[in-house]
Parts: sequence; structure tokens; C-alpha cells
Amino acid sequence: MDDPAAPARHTLIFQPSGARGPVEAGTSIRRAAAELGIEIESICADAATCGKCRVIIEDGRFGDLESSPDHASAMLSNEREWVQKRSKTWRKMGLDPDRLRLSCQATVCGDMVVFVPESSRGNRQIIRKAANDRAIDIRQTVRRYYLEMEPATLEDPLGDVERLSRALVAAMSRVHAGSDQRLPEPADIEFDLDLLRRIGGVVRESDGKVSVVLWQGRRVIDVRPGLSESIYGIALDIGSTAIAAYLCDLESGELIGTDSMMNPQTSFGDDIMSRMKYEAEHVDGLATLHDVLLTGVNALITRTARSHRVDVADIHEISVVGNTTMHHLFLGISTRPLSTVPFVPAVHRALDVPARDLGVVANRGANLHVLPIAASFVGADAMAVVISEEPHKQDENLLIIDIGTNAELIAGSRNGLVCTSTPTGPAFEGAHIEYGMRAAVGAIDRIEIDADTFEPRYQVIGTESWGPDFGGGTDGGPAKGICGSAIIDGVAEMFRTGIITARGHFVPNLETDRVRKTELGWEYVVARASETSIGRDIPITLDDVRQIQLAKAALYTASHILLRELGIETPDKIILAGAFGSHIDATRAMILGMIPDCPLDRVYSVGNAAGDGARIALLNREKRLEAQEIAATIRRVELPVDPDFQNEYLLATSFPHMSHRFAAIADLIPDQVVDPMAGRFGRST
Amino acid sequence: MDDPAAPARHTLIFQPSGARGPVEAGTSIRRAAAELGIEIESICADAATCGKCRVIIEDGRFGDLESSPDHASAMLSNEREWVQKRSKTWRKMGLDPDRLRLSCQATVCGDMVVFVPESSRGNRQIIRKAANDRAIDIRQTVRRYYLEMEPATLEDPLGDVERLSRALVAAMSRVHAGSDQRLPEPADIEFDLDLLRRIGGVVRESDGKVSVVLWQGRRVIDVRPGLSESIYGIALDIGSTAIAAYLCDLESGELIGTDSMMNPQTSFGDDIMSRMKYEAEHVDGLATLHDVLLTGVNALITRTARSHRVDVADIHEISVVGNTTMHHLFLGISTRPLSTVPFVPAVHRALDVPARDLGVVANRGANLHVLPIAASFVGADAMAVVISEEPHKQDENLLIIDIGTNAELIAGSRNGLVCTSTPTGPAFEGAHIEYGMRAAVGAIDRIEIDADTFEPRYQVIGTESWGPDFGGGTDGGPAKGICGSAIIDGVAEMFRTGIITARGHFVPNLETDRVRKTELGWEYVVARASETSIGRDIPITLDDVRQIQLAKAALYTASHILLRELGIETPDKIILAGAFGSHIDATRAMILGMIPDCPLDRVYSVGNAAGDGARIALLNREKRLEAQEIAATIRRVELPVDPDFQNEYLLATSFPHMSHRFAAIADLIPDQVVDPMAGRFGRST
Repeated sequence: MDDPAAPARHTLIFQPSGARGPVEAGTSIRRAAAELGIEIESICADAATCGKCRVIIEDGRFGDLESSPDHASAMLSNEREWVQKRSKTWRKMGLDPDRLRLSCQATVCGDMVVFVPESSRGNRQIIRKAANDRAIDIRQTVRRYYLEMEPATLEDPLGDVERLSRALVAAMSRVHAGSDQRLPEPADIEFDLDLLRRIGGVVRESDGKVSVVLWQGRRVIDVRPGLSESIYGIALDIGSTAIAAYLCDLESGELIGTDSMMNPQTSFGDDIMSRMKYEAEHVDGLATLHDVLLTGVNALITRTARSHRVDVADIHEISVVGNTTMHHLFLGISTRPLSTVPFVPAVHRALDVPARDLGVVANRGANLHVLPIAASFVGADAMAVVISEEPHKQDENLLIIDIGTNAELIAGSRNGLVCTSTPTGPAFEGAHIEYGMRAAVGAIDRIEIDADTFEPRYQVIGTESWGPDFGGGTDGGPAKGICGSAIIDGVAEMFRTGIITARGHFVPNLETDRVRKTELGWEYVVARASETSIGRDIPITLDDVRQIQLAKAALYTASHILLRELGIETPDKIILAGAFGSHIDATRAMILGMIPDCPLDRVYSVGNAAGDGARIALLNREKRLEAQEIAATIRRVELPVDPDFQNEYLLATSFPHMSHRFAAIADLIPDQVVDPMAGRFGRST
Repeated sequence: MDDPAAPARHTLIFQPSGARGPVEAGTSIRRAAAELGIEIESICADAATCGKCRVIIEDGRFGDLESSPDHASAMLSNEREWVQKRSKTWRKMGLDPDRLRLSCQATVCGDMVVFVPESSRGNRQIIRKAANDRAIDIRQTVRRYYLEMEPATLEDPLGDVERLSRALVAAMSRVHAGSDQRLPEPADIEFDLDLLRRIGGVVRESDGKVSVVLWQGRRVIDVRPGLSESIYGIALDIGSTAIAAYLCDLESGELIGTDSMMNPQTSFGDDIMSRMKYEAEHVDGLATLHDVLLTGVNALITRTARSHRVDVADIHEISVVGNTTMHHLFLGISTRPLSTVPFVPAVHRALDVPARDLGVVANRGANLHVLPIAASFVGADAMAVVISEEPHKQDENLLIIDIGTNAELIAGSRNGLVCTSTPTGPAFEGAHIEYGMRAAVGAIDRIEIDADTFEPRYQVIGTESWGPDFGGGTDGGPAKGICGSAIIDGVAEMFRTGIITARGHFVPNLETDRVRKTELGWEYVVARASETSIGRDIPITLDDVRQIQLAKAALYTASHILLRELGIETPDKIILAGAFGSHIDATRAMILGMIPDCPLDRVYSVGNAAGDGARIALLNREKRLEAQEIAATIRRVELPVDPDFQNEYLLATSFPHMSHRFAAIADLIPDQVVDPMAGRFGRST
């Protein structure tokens, strides 16, 4: 039997989730949503100030519903004021201001269909890449709350910090009502000395109406008068060569802008080995490398913020990824133990460091989160790739290869991950290659060779298209050199067309003048002098082929040993990460035996997954825990101590034999290198 | 039935506790003690390195015991080495080195009586004062552990921080085996950036044999090669006038030395009001007051450490108490809100601030613990008094009065505490008194007056004895002025001998030339010009009497209102704290009605209880929690808003009437002021 004294109940439907259920009359729409499991955002804790909880009362016909807005309570002055200020803008956007309500104010008087816009949803996502529609869930590490503190009186002269803590927890309990957010005790809210010094002034200036920025639900990192503007974060991907910064709105998750710069440490050496060498050989080497990097990072942050009109004081959180060497040098930690046997990092775990302690420009209370390190040479960047690509959540076995001067490899599935790293030599970066250069304007970055005429066609960075046809030349500017991806293309094509054998030897007496032996040895001319800006032929030499053989052998062997650790033959999916990894042509990489066999359509290039991971760690605190957990549990396979490594490595310098090739690319392999006696790797000369 | 395979069991008796019980053969004595509830100290986690766990195998006759040492296992080389190094010293101390064993090494082979010296006991106490034998329990906030880390290898190249954390938790589990100390997870051990930078070097320098200093069982604040020396702490009592520093050994609790200095802020004003005024009236007032105080504190810490040959880098913890104004200025927090209605402090709670952030000299990782504040004018010093005097643990009702320019009062028992504060004016400090001066050489600090002749005798600071008899003069140097305690003596004696009335008026026509009326008004001459170094008579004037009346009225009224809050008439015990409080003569204070009635033998002077509390907070982490809890729950009574305050205050300016006096002092009150019509406070004259 119904209790006649019980309040009436009405049915609410929330769109787009479709959640529906009965709600007591008089409940605020925001509260009603919480009861039905829908989280609606709020900064001001139901004070009709922040507008984050706005919803649209939709038309709909069910129950006794006729005109929905009447089924919500009438607007009171504070909500009306808020809505009126914005009604013009909304009309322009084609929205009916009469149907837009603050869900913290409007209460339920009858059945309603309520649309919760993306921006009001508590569990927001943002789309990471237009291309693949992958989303980042927003789980804020740093949150903003708007408070109106009770004024202190002679009867209740409680201290500012205690009154603010009390008001903050009260606001949190309203904002998070119905969610599983744990509320701290007011006495457990933390403040650092800097804030203790500033709170009194801010509270008095604003008459107790303040915006509080809270870190990890427990530490106040900023207090500002009134309802403050947005809060921002910076994700930093510190590579040996380049540093990228991603400026994000910490509440919407929106990527405001991105910028990058050369790592200023490059003047002390191209790769991590040379940086570590510099530190080891100079008394102030660590200080020099740290300072130059920090200065660069600060310049980059300032420039990125400025160019998007964001005050660096509004940057309240920073996430950082980088390889172990960059990680150490950025934090000012010596790399000496890292560069000598047994290659020990100072620390694996994720770190939260006050940005101020490190000297990084940001808000005075900003925290800097550094992702964890899995192993000496599987760094925070690799952990960022992991939380971006999530191999630990897949049923399939993934093999992730982040290729650079050093390659980090991670393999596995939800059943466990293994990782390793291997130096690949500088060939992939275009260094130690006769005409090698970085991927920059003028670099040949794609090569194809005609199997009948041995004539090439190629693509030069700075032009949009391939050369008109086989036989040389481009539509764009003349070539200056060859970059890493084109070296791989070129060597793969030379193998495919029979210019070189499986062991990497040049086949003599071919009917082309592009293959020739000079006093320096055999070479294949990709671009003739007339097509270049350097006035010389640009060839791929026998030495270049050797460099690629060594690099791909390292990569292949590392992959193979990892897969064996997992007890599998081939991965279900291969992910090529890193700027360079994204430029590699998967087919050619497989022809060379650079990566294990796998259906070609299961090989993905994901671009700068480390940068994506840095953004994910910035926007989602749960993914930080995930990274920490994986770094602590991932199995490290150390190649140099593996007795099989040298053996496999030597075998893997050969290009793989057609008879053993995966079907998908078998018909790309030249007949002339078929040798029925050959093993897994060809033995023909 | 006994299991024949079970190891034999032997009876152990531990002295001086007398704990006894059976222990399995082969158990280490330290472990056996833990099983019987006796905690034995250790730094090195049973590595026979630190020697903290040494015990004496005593002679005794029970069971099959004949020669006790044989009932402990034979010494192995590491213990033997440790013992041999020290055997000469021990013989000199009259100890038998053969009976001294490291309890972590010696195992049980038969029945034994084991004496655990104080220095080896886990739950140590130190005696605070020879006078009253009160003890401080040692509950270290900061602990030292000696570790021998597993070396990193190519097979297990775990990072330094992770290996150290793992070794630390393993050592903690051995050191605290059998105790209720909670062990952290290795991953939860915290390190700050500075340590992350240093650990690698220390670990390599020492081959992984390091001493770790751990704060609150979770944060590593220092790592040093080898077995480090002692760790020290400084307790600071920052008064408006003087600053005291107590240098303690954090492990033994021993007070190594103490030193004090004038608060350098005194050049900006004598009392807290004038300091707050200085801040309010100067743009850089806060910075000036903070800097001068910090410079002073640093000089004091350095001087105290140096004079006891302690390196400031070995100071690993600092505790700080002070009134709310000193608290704020020391931390660099503005006192403006504190100096204007409604008198709000920035923060009540206890604070842990990195000493480095504040700029206080100490070890780089040292924490500075600031005790909590109960109310705007019942500060961290009062909370220190509370944890020192422990009213919250008494069945009786205590009234604690910490008297200075401002008086803080705390009253209550285990059933609850109330507190308040009242300005007493500067009279007690000898200021605003015609011939007043601080308690320094040349100050008259005790006065008695003969009731028949009205002749005084007095005592001068710098001399050991009273003047030879009534009639003036001293054995020591001549008088320069009168200090606070003597003003109270003098006025009380003037009242007792009938020189002044209960309303504080001079009685005319007494048979003495010491009472006279000058153009400035009435006065009583304590020292004649010939007895002084200033060549002028030193009198107590009518104005001086008024100052004392106002001050004592404030104190009495505050006490009275507090007692009323508790619903009681008189306290069971009165504690006078503070340097000044200790100098007051309790009888005279009661004659004046400065303190409520209470049996005289229940009035105690405890000296600098705030300083004691600072030491307690330094040495016992549980007392910090106690202070925090009391500060959060103590009831604050704000006098200015109490409607009865002005009334009571006016009444209390009179001296109390004999007929209403407590029996203990009734016969000290002069007959001539008896007035049967008078109320609780005399109305005569």
C-alpha cells in the first residue's frame, strides 16, 4: 500500500544514456541523475554559479508529460540570472534557453526527458585522434571547487584553513553525491607552506568566496578569489631528439595546443649513449645536461601557453614521459649507474614532484607526475605507450615496438607482459649511413625499385607526391640525402628485386648501371647527381646495407626472444610506435625480417604513442596507477645475458627466406634467393 | 604428549621487567624477548653491527642453570669482533664483557636470566626533571636503520630506490618483529627529489651498506654510507621575549644541551600587540619580522649544535611551539586577521613543514613539526603545556595558568578541557611600573613587610640571600628596580599589613615614613636611595597598585569564567606555568585574588612547561596526535563576548575579603580590612 504521506514519484529519462527510473518529487535533477547512476559535473557544489551542470529538458511524450519544462520547478533568481546572461549566446547556437536548466537548481515536478550534454557529464571522454576515434576517459587528478565559506565571527573564530577545509569537504560531498568518490576528513586536507601564507589574504579579498584547486582529492594546491577560470595541464614527452608539449584543459580534456622543440641536449651528443658519456666525462656534466634541458622545457611550456593565451600560473599539473636517460637527466639524477654494468636506474616507481622544487614553470602548487620506468632501457616513454595501447587489457598477444636509436619492445596480453630493449644503432635515424640524414626537407623518405629495370622512384620530404615514374626525379625539390625510413625501403626493395642476396651481398652483373662497384665498395644509386641539391649521386652502399642488417637483426632477435618468453610463435598484432616507427612501411619491414611475421593488416603504426600516453596520464589518474602497476609487474628480459642472443642475432642478420615467409608477403619475395636448403633465415650468399 | 621432533624449550627471565616464559631453543634472545612482550632496540636489524640490542646475561639459579653464559650460544666472529672492540671500556665500567651479548646474535641453549639495560629497551623513557622525576616516553618520529642491500646484478638490475625500499622494509620487519609497528609496502616508502638525486652515489660509495633515516615510518629523509652516528633533534620554544632551544638525541631522548636568546623581534616592540601593529603598519612588516626571527632561530640552532659538537646536518627533526603570533610570524604567515575582529588565526592544526622550505638550518630532509593552536590567543605553546601537564588524563580538575604579558588558561580533566586567554597588561613583566624592570641582575624580586613596623626586607637578583633583616639593604649589590614577581609580593604585603585597603587605596596616617604622598600621589618606599644603584628611592606607587589590580582582575575573572564553564567552584589543583608563573609566590597570588582559592599545597609552579612540551613533541610522536586531538576538541571560551565579563572584571579589581578567604590563608589577612558587609570582593574604603 502506498503511504499517502510519501512524496509523489515521477519518471525521469536521461539521454543519451537512456537511464530511467522513478524519482521523488522535489529532488534536484542533478541529484536524481546521481540516483540513476548518471554523474553530472559541478564545480560550485550546487550554488548556481559555475554552470557546469547545465542540462536540456527535452520534449518527450510518456506518462502524463505534455510540456516538459513545466515538469521542472520554476527558476529562482540565482538560476535566472545565470541563464539570462547566456541566453543570447545559446539562441545563436540554436538552443532554447527556456529548456536549458541548471540541474542543481531545477527540481522534479513531473515526468521528464533530460538530455545531459557531453560537457556536463561527470565521466567525460575526449576523442584522442580523429583518425581512429580512440577516446581518453577523463578522471581528473586535479579538480576545481567553488566555495562560499561561512564568515568567521567572534562566536566562531575558527582558523581560515579549518573553515576552508570544512567548506571544501561540504562542497565535495555535494558535488560527488551519489558517486563513489571518497571524501576526506576536513582535518586531513593538506596545504603546503606557500598556501598557508596566502589563504588569509585570498579569503578576505573575496569575502570567503573562493575557488579551490585540489590535487588527488586531498591536497589544496591553489586558492583563488571568486570563481576562477579554467585549469590547465601540460603533458611533456621528452625524447632524446625532440621534446613535445601538449597543453590541455584539465576539466574538458580538450587539447588546447601542442608545440615541440629540439632537445637542447643534442649539442652534447645525438643519442642517449653520448649524453651519458658526457656526464661521465665532465665534473659538472649532470648539472649542464640537466640545466640545458630544464631551460628548454621551461621555454617550451612558456611558449606553448603563451601562444594559446594561457597564463603559466594556470597550469596546475604536468605529466612527463621520456626514456630512462632523459627521465634521470630531467630530474637531475646521475646516469652513471645507468651507463655501467649492471645498468641500474635510480628509481623505477612513478614520481610526484612539486614542479617548483624542480624549477619547472607552472602554478606554484603544481605537481609534476613522472611516469614509472620498467627497466634501465624501457623507460617512462614505454610505460606511456603501454597505457596508450593497453596490451594488458587485450585477449590477443600484442607486440609493441617503439623504434628509435634504441628500441623498446613490449609483448603480451592480459595474461602478462614482458619487455626488453635493444640498441638498433643509428641507422634508423639516418646516421652512420653514407648519405643518411634526419627526416627533414630534402630527405628521400620512400623508395620503390622496379623489379625488371632496377630503376627507382622515390619521394622527397617537402613534396606531396612521388616522383613521376621509375627512372628518377621528383616533382618537388631536389634530394639532399636519405632518411631512416627510406633506407629500410631501399634495402627491402634491393632484396625484393634481387639486387642483394639474403646475406646482404650485392649480386654482380645485373643489367643496370645503378649497381656498381667503386673503390669504396658496392653501391646502388638511388638519385643521380642531377636530381640532387648536393651535385653528387646518392647511393645506398654495402655499408648501409650492413647497418640495416645489424639494426634489424637486433630488433628481430629481441622480438623473437620476447615472444618465446610468452611461449608463442607469432604475435596477433604488431604495433609500431614512435615517430620513426610510424614512418616505416610494414610490408618492407617484414620483407627485411625486421619484425616477426604477422598478417599485414594486423600491423599498426600509432605515431607518437608515448605522447598520447603522457596526455592520458595527465587527464586520467587511474591510468597512472595502471602504469605503476605494470611497471612493477612487467617481466624484464635482459638480452645481453641471454645465452641464445648472440646466436640468434648472428642468424638474424640475414634477410628471411621466402619458403619460410608468411603467406601475405610470400609473393613479394624474389625467386632468385630461394634456397631449399636454407633455414629460417636464408643462407644463400 | 610432547612431539619428540619439537625443539626443546627453555625458561627465560628478563630483568628488570621480570617477564618470564618458555622459549624454543635456538631462538635469538632478542626474538625471545619480543615473544615475551619485551622490546629490545635495534638499528642494524640483527646484523651485529649497531650494538643497540646488547644485554647482560645475569647470574641466576633456577632450573638447571649453573653458568648462564653457557646457556647462550657461542659467539660467532661478527659478534666477537664487535664485543672485543669494546671490552676494555666495559671492564673500566665494571662490566664483565663475557656476560655482555648482542641479543640479536646470542641464541637460547638453556634457561637464562637476561638483564636488558635501559639503553637497549625499545620503550625507553627519559627523566625530564631531576626535581619531580617526571618521565618522557620515547616514541621516535624519526628512526635510523642500518641496511646491507643486495647488490644489483645483470640478472636483477632493480633500481636503487626499489632495492633500498625492499631492504628497508625487510630490516624494519626484523627490528620491529613482535611489536605492533605497522610495516609499509616497499612501494609506499617515500623519497623526495633531493634524495632521489643522492641515493645512487651513497649506495655505490658504501657498497650498499647504508644508514637510512626514516620519518614517521614512511618517508626516507636521509641515506648515509655505513653505520652513521646518532641522529639529533631540536625543540624550539619561541616566546615573544625569549627563544629557547633544546638539543636532544632522538634515540636515547637525552637532552644534550640547551641554549636561549632574546627574541630579536623585541626591537620591533615588547609584546605581541606591538609586533602585530608593526606588521600592520609596514608594507614589508611581515617579511621583516619573519626574517629577523628566522635569522635568530638559525643562529641559536647553529650555536647550540656547535657548542655540543653536533653537526647541524645531523639534526633530523625540529619541533616548534610558540604563541599564535610567534607561530604565524615564524612561518611567515600574516597576523593581520589575528589582530582584528574576529581575531582569526590562519590555521589551527599541527603542521609538518620541510625545514628546508622554511629556511631553517638542519639536515636537508629534516621535518619541522609545529604544534597546533587551540584559539587565536591560546597557541601552540599552550598546547605544549597541555601535553606536558596532561590535564586531559586527570580525574581531578586542573587549572593551568601560563602567565606572561598575555595569560593563557586551560581548565578541566579527562572529562573535557576549556581554554581562554586574557591580556594581563605589562605589569607582570615589570613594564608600566614606575620603577619596574625585567627580572635581571639588580631587580628586587621578593618583598616582605613587617606588619607592626611596616618596614620591608627584600631580595635582589644577583644575590643569594634576603637582606639581613627588615629595615632595608641587602647582602648583595644595590637595587636598580622592581621586577614583576616583587610587585606582586609588594602589593600583597601592603594589603596584608594594612597599608592599602581591599579597593587598593592607601590608608593615611600610618606610623611610618615609608608611606607618603608626593605630588605624583601615594607611594610606599621599598628601598631607600642609599640602598640603590640609581640614587633614588624605589617605591611602589598607587599607579603600580592599580596596574596589579587590573592584571589580577583579568586573570581572576578568566579563571572564574572557565571554572563556571566546567560547572565547578574551585579547581583541585592549580598549575602556574611559564618563567614568570614559576616566580610567583602562590600564597601572595592568592592573597591578591589573582588565582582562585585552592589548598596551597595543590598549587604548583612547573617552570617552562611549554619548553617541556616542545621536547615531548620532539621525542614522542603519539603526543603530537594527542596535542592535535585536544586542539581540535578543546572548548574555546572567548572572554570579550561574555556578558558577565565586564561585571566580574570590575568586581575583581578589589582584593578579596578575609571572611570569604580560603582557610589556608585566612590568618594572613589583616583584621583592619575585615568588613562583614562586604561581598565576595571587599568593599571597604
